[in-house]
Amino acid sequence: MNDFVLDFSNAIALSSSDIGIEENSIFHQEITDAYNRTLALRDSGKYGFFDLPGKDITLIQQFTEKKLEKFDNFVVLGIGGSALGNKMLHNSLNPLYWNYFPKEKRNGFLRVFVIDNVDPELLLGLLNTIDIKRTLFNVITKSGTTAETMTNYLFALDTLKKELKDNFRGNVVITTDKEKGILRKYAQENKIDTFIVPDNVGGRFSVLTDVGLLSASFEGINIKRLLEGAANMRNTFFSSFENPITIFASIAYQLLRKYNINETVLMPYSNHLSYFADWFVQLWAESLGKKTDRQGSVVNAGLTPIKAVGATDQHSQIQLYNEGPKNKFLTFIRINNHRMDAKFENIEINELKYLEKHSISQLLNTEQTATADTLRENNVPNVTLSIPELNEFNIGKLIFFFETATAFMGELLNIDAFNQPGVENAKNITYALMGRKGFDDARKIYLEKKAEYPNLSIDF
Amino acid sequence: MNDFVLDFSNAIALSSSDIGIEENSIFHQEITDAYNRTLALRDSGKYGFFDLPGKDITLIQQFTEKKLEKFDNFVVLGIGGSALGNKMLHNSLNPLYWNYFPKEKRNGFLRVFVIDNVDPELLLGLLNTIDIKRTLFNVITKSGTTAETMTNYLFALDTLKKELKDNFRGNVVITTDKEKGILRKYAQENKIDTFIVPDNVGGRFSVLTDVGLLSASFEGINIKRLLEGAANMRNTFFSSFENPITIFASIAYQLLRKYNINETVLMPYSNHLSYFADWFVQLWAESLGKKTDRQGSVVNAGLTPIKAVGATDQHSQIQLYNEGPKNKFLTFIRINNHRMDAKFENIEINELKYLEKHSISQLLNTEQTATADTLRENNVPNVTLSIPELNEFNIGKLIFFFETATAFMGELLNIDAFNQPGVENAKNITYALMGRKGFDDARKIYLEKKAEYPNLSIDF
Repeated sequence: MNDFVLDFSNAIALSSSDIGIEENSIFHQEITDAYNRTLALRDSGKYGFFDLPGKDITLIQQFTEKKLEKFDNFVVLGIGGSALGNKMLHNSLNPLYWNYFPKEKRNGFLRVFVIDNVDPELLLGLLNTIDIKRTLFNVITKSGTTAETMTNYLFALDTLKKELKDNFRGNVVITTDKEKGILRKYAQENKIDTFIVPDNVGGRFSVLTDVGLLSASFEGINIKRLLEGAANMRNTFFSSFENPITIFASIAYQLLRKYNINETVLMPYSNHLSYFADWFVQLWAESLGKKTDRQGSVVNAGLTPIKAVGATDQHSQIQLYNEGPKNKFLTFIRINNHRMDAKFENIEINELKYLEKHSISQLLNTEQTATADTLRENNVPNVTLSIPELNEFNIGKLIFFFETATAFMGELLNIDAFNQPGVENAKNITYALMGRKGFDDARKIYLEKKAEYPNLSIDF
Repeated sequence: MNDFVLDFSNAIALSSSDIGIEENSIFHQEITDAYNRTLALRDSGKYGFFDLPGKDITLIQQFTEKKLEKFDNFVVLGIGGSALGNKMLHNSLNPLYWNYFPKEKRNGFLRVFVIDNVDPELLLGLLNTIDIKRTLFNVITKSGTTAETMTNYLFALDTLKKELKDNFRGNVVITTDKEKGILRKYAQENKIDTFIVPDNVGGRFSVLTDVGLLSASFEGINIKRLLEGAANMRNTFFSSFENPITIFASIAYQLLRKYNINETVLMPYSNHLSYFADWFVQLWAESLGKKTDRQGSVVNAGLTPIKAVGATDQHSQIQLYNEGPKNKFLTFIRINNHRMDAKFENIEINELKYLEKHSISQLLNTEQTATADTLRENNVPNVTLSIPELNEFNIGKLIFFFETATAFMGELLNIDAFNQPGVENAKNITYALMGRKGFDDARKIYLEKKAEYPNLSIDF
């Protein structure tokens, strides 16, 4: 079985008192129209992620070959879309304890660390822990001005220069806009190697560009197969209206409209897909959370993406999902064949005899079935996506599945899934409070507003 | 400044069109009544977590002293409440890269790994990576029958016996019920060291029992100070009705009742508190997500806890929070003094000059202020909890703050915050499908129900 399977039995209402959708409503006219608008999005050429499966990866492969031997560690300095994809690929495809492996066991490929915050210890602690000379730093920011990323770069650079003097250049590679931005200029002036964040691909859709692929390549992930998997999914979606992405989006959309179900839980039964869920959270939240629709009316659209990992979160969040408010739609991901597994033999403890002759993964997947069907009994609609095994092709497919589903949902909601106007204001206030030139007015306006608020707090 | 500060200015409505609560509504009669019921809960003696700050830790300290030298690694085998607290203490209090440190840098204390899933690689991969002979395994389950935990123990045991023959006993310590359950019996028969999960403390409230404290002790965390911090918070809560926990619970409750705001975001600006948010998610979800109220009426109560980490998730979830549905209440946590920090000097890149003379943590905390105030502008109520620094005393205080707030919310919602009836059914189905004795009827009922469902799926 090399196919993915999307099982949506648990999303169908059996009766009118049941929460779910009608089987024959999946492909109704509104869905057809949104599908056609999604095709138009692709044809517009404005949203480059649709074309990434055809990306040329020669430069990445050459650079990896040239540089690999010189390093043990690859450190990504990025945030949001310039970090979540890197973490996701690392976690999905390489062994869970990869960074603890000695070099031989890594076949010469690098450990990968992603520094995606300005918690001081995240960077400074790492600089104290790894061998800087054997570390390649990849600074990733489209604009070149992302405060968090550039902060981390400035401090990493300081350490690099202390250790390596003018040779620091060989330990840095910059991924930024092809022409614009201060980082492009800086790289040219300082003769630092560069890669490209394409102009027409937003951060959260950029994992299959140089942004996500470079670190993956340095840790030995087959990026060619990743792109082939994405191409396969693209073909499935664009060659027929009646495809699994349409079904998924139609279910999520109808549950929202019929019942105001606006919490979207992604629950892989796999520790490897824990960061896949984090990656999905950004994609779904930032794309679909929008104040206005395409006509400018205030709609405050949005579905809250929630990460859960099975079976672990059966012991954390599932009580709420089973018994709490009926505002949740769950998508499970399960893996048919695990790369590591083991079978129970001769169990001495009587109460655990029932596990005999089963494998660990059978227990895991049986728990998934039991959880999905219990939720359905409790009127919590859910679907299950089964994937044959974790490999590059399948992860590429999975990435493209959720990216396209997100674009499709944007069309269903009649909003722009590709911008993020709601994050600008806080950036400007930060600049204003940090004393950046040109932000004096912003500071004044901020302080005036602030003065209107009450000032209430309690010490303890 | 050694105090915590809870700033709730951003949760107050300035006008009737504003989303927020009225300043003079915080201590209204309903809140007083619930406070008094919370005192009664404590006095009932049924909920042992209230008394944990007075716990005797002598046995833990003696055991640590006796065993420490023999080991490099401490592996927790547990799930849910028998894992989240261990991860939280590890992550909050020890350096972020602790497990990468050589032994000298750890002052002889142990690396800690928590195996809290039956993803096969999580355990098997670890067993291939660490030196088993130098590893102490701590099996934690109150009942002794938790399938995930016992599965991992059976496989760990297999490896231990291969390596150590009959000496395996010295590498295992069991934390379970004082008298009941198969694991207590097993430990006695096999002469294995044990610790106790108290009868009257539920899993999600158990971090300050042997469950959470043993692993903490082995990694050099000052567990005495943890308990002192919890005691300090307990005193603050019980000595006066007008305390920060009352304020927090009152705000969360009123926002729920007035606006149906049922998504509770916990957003620490600290990578150290990332697992604190995970720990909170279980506490809040499992305690407050309940089908029926105390009188048995169906209420489907519950607030969805959501983890976010600042500043990172400004680049992921904040767009949705600013512009999406008005169903969110955010609690920020910020740290005034970071243990590691650095100041910007002489910045060469002109566009980043504004960072000069600031520290990394100033940027981080300024971003928190900017984000909180922007959300408020967008009518998303929020509070900020400032803590002076990360240390054992303060984490103990923080733990007790959220545990007590959860119990208090249970009283406000008129539900039992201490049970979890919604997780039993899936357990039984799992047993039935795995062929456990005594579950034949459950299997029959399950399959009959399943046959009523449609069977809908798509391969791709």
